[in-house]
Amino acid sequence: MVTFSRNRQEVSFLSRDKLAIIPLGGMGEIGKNMTAVRYGENILLIDCGLMFPEEEMLGIDVVIPDITYLLENRDCVRGIVLTHGHEDHIGALPFVLKQLNVPVYGTRLTLGLLQGKLKEHGLNGVQLQVVKPRDAVHIGPFRVEFIRVSHSIPDAVAIAVHTPVGVLVHTGDFKIDQTPVDGQVTDFCRLAQLGERGVLVLMSDSTNVERPGYTMSERVVGATFDETFRQARERIIVATFASNVHRLQQAIATARRYDRKVAVVGRSMVNVLSVAQELGYIEVPDGTLIELDEANRLPKNKVVLLSTGSQGEPMSALTRMAMCDHRQVEIIPGDTIIISATPIPGNEKLVARIIDQLFKQGAHVIYEKVSGIHVSGHPSQEELKLMINLVRPRFFVPVHGEHRMLIKHAELARGMGIPPENIFVLENGQVLEFNRKGGRIAGRVTAGRVLVDGLGVGDVGNIVLRDRKQLSQDGILIVVVTIDRESGQVIAGPDIVSRGFVYVRESEQLMEDAREKVKCALVKCTGNGVSEWAAIKSQVRDTLGKYLFEKTRRRPMILPIIMEV
Amino acid sequence: MVTFSRNRQEVSFLSRDKLAIIPLGGMGEIGKNMTAVRYGENILLIDCGLMFPEEEMLGIDVVIPDITYLLENRDCVRGIVLTHGHEDHIGALPFVLKQLNVPVYGTRLTLGLLQGKLKEHGLNGVQLQVVKPRDAVHIGPFRVEFIRVSHSIPDAVAIAVHTPVGVLVHTGDFKIDQTPVDGQVTDFCRLAQLGERGVLVLMSDSTNVERPGYTMSERVVGATFDETFRQARERIIVATFASNVHRLQQAIATARRYDRKVAVVGRSMVNVLSVAQELGYIEVPDGTLIELDEANRLPKNKVVLLSTGSQGEPMSALTRMAMCDHRQVEIIPGDTIIISATPIPGNEKLVARIIDQLFKQGAHVIYEKVSGIHVSGHPSQEELKLMINLVRPRFFVPVHGEHRMLIKHAELARGMGIPPENIFVLENGQVLEFNRKGGRIAGRVTAGRVLVDGLGVGDVGNIVLRDRKQLSQDGILIVVVTIDRESGQVIAGPDIVSRGFVYVRESEQLMEDAREKVKCALVKCTGNGVSEWAAIKSQVRDTLGKYLFEKTRRRPMILPIIMEV
Repeated sequence: MVTFSRNRQEVSFLSRDKLAIIPLGGMGEIGKNMTAVRYGENILLIDCGLMFPEEEMLGIDVVIPDITYLLENRDCVRGIVLTHGHEDHIGALPFVLKQLNVPVYGTRLTLGLLQGKLKEHGLNGVQLQVVKPRDAVHIGPFRVEFIRVSHSIPDAVAIAVHTPVGVLVHTGDFKIDQTPVDGQVTDFCRLAQLGERGVLVLMSDSTNVERPGYTMSERVVGATFDETFRQARERIIVATFASNVHRLQQAIATARRYDRKVAVVGRSMVNVLSVAQELGYIEVPDGTLIELDEANRLPKNKVVLLSTGSQGEPMSALTRMAMCDHRQVEIIPGDTIIISATPIPGNEKLVARIIDQLFKQGAHVIYEKVSGIHVSGHPSQEELKLMINLVRPRFFVPVHGEHRMLIKHAELARGMGIPPENIFVLENGQVLEFNRKGGRIAGRVTAGRVLVDGLGVGDVGNIVLRDRKQLSQDGILIVVVTIDRESGQVIAGPDIVSRGFVYVRESEQLMEDAREKVKCALVKCTGNGVSEWAAIKSQVRDTLGKYLFEKTRRRPMILPIIMEV
Repeated sequence: MVTFSRNRQEVSFLSRDKLAIIPLGGMGEIGKNMTAVRYGENILLIDCGLMFPEEEMLGIDVVIPDITYLLENRDCVRGIVLTHGHEDHIGALPFVLKQLNVPVYGTRLTLGLLQGKLKEHGLNGVQLQVVKPRDAVHIGPFRVEFIRVSHSIPDAVAIAVHTPVGVLVHTGDFKIDQTPVDGQVTDFCRLAQLGERGVLVLMSDSTNVERPGYTMSERVVGATFDETFRQARERIIVATFASNVHRLQQAIATARRYDRKVAVVGRSMVNVLSVAQELGYIEVPDGTLIELDEANRLPKNKVVLLSTGSQGEPMSALTRMAMCDHRQVEIIPGDTIIISATPIPGNEKLVARIIDQLFKQGAHVIYEKVSGIHVSGHPSQEELKLMINLVRPRFFVPVHGEHRMLIKHAELARGMGIPPENIFVLENGQVLEFNRKGGRIAGRVTAGRVLVDGLGVGDVGNIVLRDRKQLSQDGILIVVVTIDRESGQVIAGPDIVSRGFVYVRESEQLMEDAREKVKCALVKCTGNGVSEWAAIKSQVRDTLGKYLFEKTRRRPMILPIIMEV
């Protein structure tokens, strides 16, 4: 094994080698994590995630990183290594692999979850290589090592990239769980060994840097489940993240302890559970899992439902139940519903509304205000400090966070004794280069967001979004007029049709007056000999827009269409 | 003074009098608080607030209560009493007073703030009657008493309505602040006296019922200001709610202590401060307040700016500063920015984005993760218990909360010994009637939401919102065709225009193919002798919709327009 002592690392700096770290996603945002590591003509990618759209990205399904830089350097890309199986780390792969056919390395569960996605996208022939913690693989000039960490999904790893310039450690998403459900503790020893031998740069998870202290162990949730199950007299419904296999494991074990059967509701929950079961990441005692219709026939106090929808997602199982819109499950007064999650920022109101609906139907709902019903999968400040003290990096780059979190994480690292000039808060696309003098920001490559809407990848841009925004606020008025090509005279119309503007039946007078305004504008145009369509359209838009704003204080989109016969 | 001892209250129940409480807003929601109290042919209203629109109410400015019931009983309405000057308690008055000219009673600051609003709406001649805490006024058969409480705005009162059937106490919004900034403590004595003599029903604020313990005193924020101001080396910007006069007072006092001048940014902050100053609710030492341009000329460490925008509102002063879009204030590296607020549910992402932007510009931002930078104006569980123990009501109605909060507050009251059959969790419009037997839900009146969009009050309903929703997700395609009236033949078009669907320049082929599909559909129609417009339109919509979904997995609105010449 090639390792780099502090001295050798110094030596490497004397060579003319350069190592570049280029974040293509995940900086200044939670989502679409993707980092390129470049040495000469070799690029290694760490993760390839998606992001869920911001509120103003109307109609957008998901957001993926802009990979222009990779496509321009496609011959250099040697492979993609994955830290774990969450959407924000693997979700962009189906899109990226269509354009870039390179091998993908990950642990068994991570690749198991990925395979389902690739199948849905009809992608065959992707080279997937399974690795285990403590494995090392050679990818181009890089020696890549996988190191176990705890997270809210099993089989998560940190990644150490041994390069000719030095060792890069990327934590992936992690927490320090001293009592993980599967007993697989973070590999402190290997991290410490790397630290002892000299690490050039540490890239570390910033999600929870605003929280002091330690993140609680996943086992705490098990204890809360136990207490809640013990008190419940009727049916129990547990809603949580489908991918949190350890939480599903704890719910199943608790159900078993209280002599209840478990049925699963929601497509993603069924999928994850079947992959996890098949690969041996979850232990389900024989006869515990039953079908939903069987569950509906059992006495209420013998049943636990595991459900999706802990984020109040509009189409999810729990939302449908709450809205009395689920085909198979109906909320019954006396149900105990455990929402084992905290709302992701932006989902607070969705979740609150679901809880309200469930209460209205007579359910007893246990949600985030109850301590121990959910724990985070990310490290709080003391865990972040431990990571820095284990790895003892020369340079530090906070990752996986909105800008203020990266700043706070940088401050924390400074407090740990890393000199400010060795800490880099990066933006997506910035090139952080290490040469003999140290590290510096050496430039910028194309990076950004690609919006996915239905089958369209990148065909919705700012203009379309701006139009959707205007349409959503005040609707649209379409003004159609047919003009005789020869005479330039109006021979039909103007007709006005509106959508999303006013309730027409109550505003007949307004619409009639609007039509008159347009007529006048047209007469003025044709009278003044204006025959250019563009000028006529602009005149109609101005006149009508002014009139409507005066009458309604609204600014609908106005779309004049001229037909020539 | 007419009061009711427990015995006399019992007597009143033997009479045939009925008292009804009818919430017209504020149940199952935070906002548009409004309660009708009816005795015979007399209606008294408590508060008249607005609500800010939910996310799915696209383009809506504000939401106000449906007052159909009041308009149907307009001769019975005797007056409106106000608990305090927040928007969710007075904001609907300009709309309601246009339809219902009745006297309005409130404390000085409350009416001072209201007057500004009425002026903006061009409402003159409203009868405003100023009251003081411990005042009592006769309104129809009711004797209405105003009782001081603490809240996040000065001059807040609870209301006791003495009726022939018994005493109703409505807390308004309150907290138990033992050390309020203005020294005006909640009137424990009067609440306890009423309790001692017998209260029929208590209606109490449920906003913070999910929080155990006590809400911290407003003075805690003063201490945090002091600590922060002491450490700041350059300019300080404090963003908070304009209406929190005590917080403004503390910021101004702290500025003074550290020898800084104060300038105010943001229209609502300027307005509130001027009203509060004029009415003597805030003490500003001479020479402390300066104009913004003067502030810009002073050394940075001599300046504090008080700003709006603590909720990340898109048009607010702080947002404009963060986005480098403010005419007069530019963020400078070294600025200390205090966001003295927690995001209202739904605003979390807006606020986070502003904080990120401020960090990017080199500011040092102190926000909700710092303890003591904000305290709530609503009571936590122990304060709610104190209120119940002071007032000792026979019946209990939780108000001012989403449904789950009302339920939790009902549970809390039960835990205090109020029998379950004496606790009512109501919905807007439900009539809670008290007769000799006790209380019961006796019916329902019209209640609901009226949407205000620009000048339109109630002209945007579900159809318009549904259209806006569809437009916002996938945009619109308009298909125009001109048909000869005689022959039924197409003589111009079909033309297709789209907005918010795809970026047209990149999708020319798609649009061309779509046009061909429409042509075929039209030929089929005219070929089959279909000449009804409705049938042709529906054929175009179906064909095109199917084609586009297949190609893009999107469902834009499709609007066929036929012109006849």
